[in-house]
Amino acid sequence: MKLIRHGSAGDEKPGLVDSTGTLRDLSGSVRDIAGPCLSRQALDRLRMIDPRTLPVIPAGTRLGPCVGGTRNIVAIGLNFSDHAAETGAAVPAEPILFNKAPSCLSGPNDPVILPKGSAKTDWEIELAVVIGARASYVHANEALDYVAGACIMNDVSEREFQMERGGTWTKGKGCPTFGPLGPWLVTLDEIPDLKKLSMSLDVNGTRMQTGSTATMIFDVAQLVAYVSHFMMLEPGDVITTGTPPGVGLGMKPPRYLKSGDEMVLRIDGLGEQRQTVIAFDDWTAKVAAGEPTN
Amino acid sequence: MKLIRHGSAGDEKPGLVDSTGTLRDLSGSVRDIAGPCLSRQALDRLRMIDPRTLPVIPAGTRLGPCVGGTRNIVAIGLNFSDHAAETGAAVPAEPILFNKAPSCLSGPNDPVILPKGSAKTDWEIELAVVIGARASYVHANEALDYVAGACIMNDVSEREFQMERGGTWTKGKGCPTFGPLGPWLVTLDEIPDLKKLSMSLDVNGTRMQTGSTATMIFDVAQLVAYVSHFMMLEPGDVITTGTPPGVGLGMKPPRYLKSGDEMVLRIDGLGEQRQTVIAFDDWTAKVAAGEPTN
Repeated sequence: MKLIRHGSAGDEKPGLVDSTGTLRDLSGSVRDIAGPCLSRQALDRLRMIDPRTLPVIPAGTRLGPCVGGTRNIVAIGLNFSDHAAETGAAVPAEPILFNKAPSCLSGPNDPVILPKGSAKTDWEIELAVVIGARASYVHANEALDYVAGACIMNDVSEREFQMERGGTWTKGKGCPTFGPLGPWLVTLDEIPDLKKLSMSLDVNGTRMQTGSTATMIFDVAQLVAYVSHFMMLEPGDVITTGTPPGVGLGMKPPRYLKSGDEMVLRIDGLGEQRQTVIAFDDWTAKVAAGEPTN
Repeated sequence: MKLIRHGSAGDEKPGLVDSTGTLRDLSGSVRDIAGPCLSRQALDRLRMIDPRTLPVIPAGTRLGPCVGGTRNIVAIGLNFSDHAAETGAAVPAEPILFNKAPSCLSGPNDPVILPKGSAKTDWEIELAVVIGARASYVHANEALDYVAGACIMNDVSEREFQMERGGTWTKGKGCPTFGPLGPWLVTLDEIPDLKKLSMSLDVNGTRMQTGSTATMIFDVAQLVAYVSHFMMLEPGDVITTGTPPGVGLGMKPPRYLKSGDEMVLRIDGLGEQRQTVIAFDDWTAKVAAGEPTN
């Protein structure tokens, strides 16, 4: 299944994409794509529904982040050997973990707002997985049983906040709109091989990142198992698994996002994200003028 | 008001402590001490209730973490100049931020479980504040308007996971039971001065930490404002503001927690926490035998 959440920000409703690509509403069947609705049993119940019986979602409806109620976003640093190289960092001996604030989550096509005072906002296409069942001290060979599905995340990052303001990376990773997630939460049965997904990110039509999950240092199962040894993972939690080469920080000279830039992100079978970048002041002016913001 | 959450883990009900110290149930008035119930208006409505009309909570009832629905725990590192000194770190120029996984939250008197393979689990008494309203880019002089109240947090920390396993501090801060919070969420009107609260932590009856919020490098208002410039804070989010000297890591030689140790934490006006430490294997044996675990 390809699950979605649609409607206005903070008030999203559940839905799915049927085999013809039509978006349909699941409000009559499930409260949200969140929490207990992510369990294997709950997903099996959704599979029993004939999509043709579900209401069609009007064209132009906003998509929200493809999972709700997320309390923990664990991100993996430097998990592609070639990306580690471009940032000048050594290949890590074990996974590097950091957090993105859950309040940074946004829809796959929502604008990305440059934070106040930002000069170094950067892109990072990533494969994210959504936890479907409580996971604590699980082994890698059973870890995928705890995963509901996968989706695209743009791990938007402010490099000055991340690396020049002291302490951990937290400051540059959780600004509002720094977590576009979706468009779809694709259940694992629809993904032939998590280790062979090609990934790309374009800025203004120019290819910036090209990669494949084949070059990840630690694979999804290893990461879920590893994280579960340090904290309990809960349904709706997100693990985003690191980015391939081609971020703005790695360019010579570095290149960062500016107001008006458009990013397009794609991963095999997981759909496409498309975000327009807007400066904080332009954004607040737009909101003050009552203009549409999505 | 002194607000509490009582009942079994994951199913806590709201309550309060009346002026005689009696615990009373608020289930008839509010769904949970969480989210929108933390707004100024919602707290004012609770204040209108005559506590004598509320059911008394039976003695011996478990207390849960004093706030529910927390999605983000932001912790401040090295925020007491004398604690920074004992760890060998420089006094930071601006606040150091890291995260604790929300799934680590536990009741103020719940056992603290040593993680599998842990040899360096340590204590940290901290003043925590709970956000009452959405906060983004707020100024320090208005920041306390966004705070619902304050409480004790034991920022339990595994030092090997935190500092010897690569990457950020995340690995050593969010293990299950590493976030005892409470007993009470004390609304700010009942705290004469957030900058003059004495704090202490005992292990097995021996005083380990003695401090006062007077020696914090960045005060609560500064911290809330600072964090809100890097991420949007939401109702129920927790900021825990750093620990005074006296942690096990700072002793010569370092001293860490072992199964059977008892910690007692106190902050002026915020009550007392009391936790027994238990090794992971002892804990799982207890659960398997059906013995009481609180």
